[in-house]
Amino acid sequence: MNFLEERIVKDGIVKPGNVLKVDSFLNHQMDIRLMEEIGREFKRRFGHKPVNKVMTIEASGIGIAAFVAREFDVPMVFAKKSKSINIAGEMYVAEVESFTHKNKNQVIVSKNFLHADDHLLIIDDFLANGCALQGLISIANSAGATIEGLGIVIEKGFQTGGQIIRNLGYQLESLAIVDAMDAETGTITFREQK
Amino acid sequence: MNFLEERIVKDGIVKPGNVLKVDSFLNHQMDIRLMEEIGREFKRRFGHKPVNKVMTIEASGIGIAAFVAREFDVPMVFAKKSKSINIAGEMYVAEVESFTHKNKNQVIVSKNFLHADDHLLIIDDFLANGCALQGLISIANSAGATIEGLGIVIEKGFQTGGQIIRNLGYQLESLAIVDAMDAETGTITFREQK
Repeated sequence: MNFLEERIVKDGIVKPGNVLKVDSFLNHQMDIRLMEEIGREFKRRFGHKPVNKVMTIEASGIGIAAFVAREFDVPMVFAKKSKSINIAGEMYVAEVESFTHKNKNQVIVSKNFLHADDHLLIIDDFLANGCALQGLISIANSAGATIEGLGIVIEKGFQTGGQIIRNLGYQLESLAIVDAMDAETGTITFREQK
Repeated sequence: MNFLEERIVKDGIVKPGNVLKVDSFLNHQMDIRLMEEIGREFKRRFGHKPVNKVMTIEASGIGIAAFVAREFDVPMVFAKKSKSINIAGEMYVAEVESFTHKNKNQVIVSKNFLHADDHLLIIDDFLANGCALQGLISIANSAGATIEGLGIVIEKGFQTGGQIIRNLGYQLESLAIVDAMDAETGTITFREQK
């Protein structure tokens, strides 16, 4: 097990319905030393790529992406979620439909901060169905930017989001891939990764 | 001028209606080196206090608070905004009415991450009317936690939020206090601070 899998086993809580609560260290309360370690690990995995910007989406991606950007010494941009505001012209907008909540959201990034010569590392805390990542990829493509890779802290391997993005040919790195969870015993099965 | 005021003059954009856009370095695209400098400056101002936790509110406070928490070597908790979800019991909830938008929002923090023995430094990017900060103070009080201070990156000194919080007796430190802006000339007048 790597450092993150160990932390998930120690402090993660499995709830019925395939819910993994990691809000004591990742997405409500944040362990800053862990964020730094996550930043260093993504630098190790993507450091050979010419990344000049880290992109994420509000809210819980922000803290993680900030420490990844720190390792690369590049700026970080976070996309905003919005309910169909009309802001055409100045913004790249991706419309994203949630499988889980059945609602539509817009993901927006100002055209000032994303350009055709950008080489992006896209970061988020969780990947399940992948709606948020699909929105970020769409926005990067609208800008003509190059996606150098995508880094996820925890991927739910039993949902389809990760496979879709790998099928699309992107380098997707998840620090922990959860293949199964059992709420009764609290056990978590991680996918073996090289 | 301090480092932040200099950056605001260099890259901030004054828009009609007393709008100050700092989204190129603070709350959409983030300059990580600046975040680190902000973290160090709040450590300098509050380092004598027994801070054991940094608290902020999503979304744009998160990146800043993370680097403040890093300087103090303590965890960071970010409050979530929600539209009247019924989550009584497990959460501290503050109902906050926006002066600007006339709508009500709930600010919520899990009871797992805020306790009576916590000594909080509350951080946010902007302070205008102060609704968000009022919600965070309310939540800290609900938990019986001690508020050691509040740190703001940019305060709009011509609005009432800062004065109210200082009147309440809290140590409120704003790295830049904007007393006036002129959208026609682009000039920004900062309050002199010792």
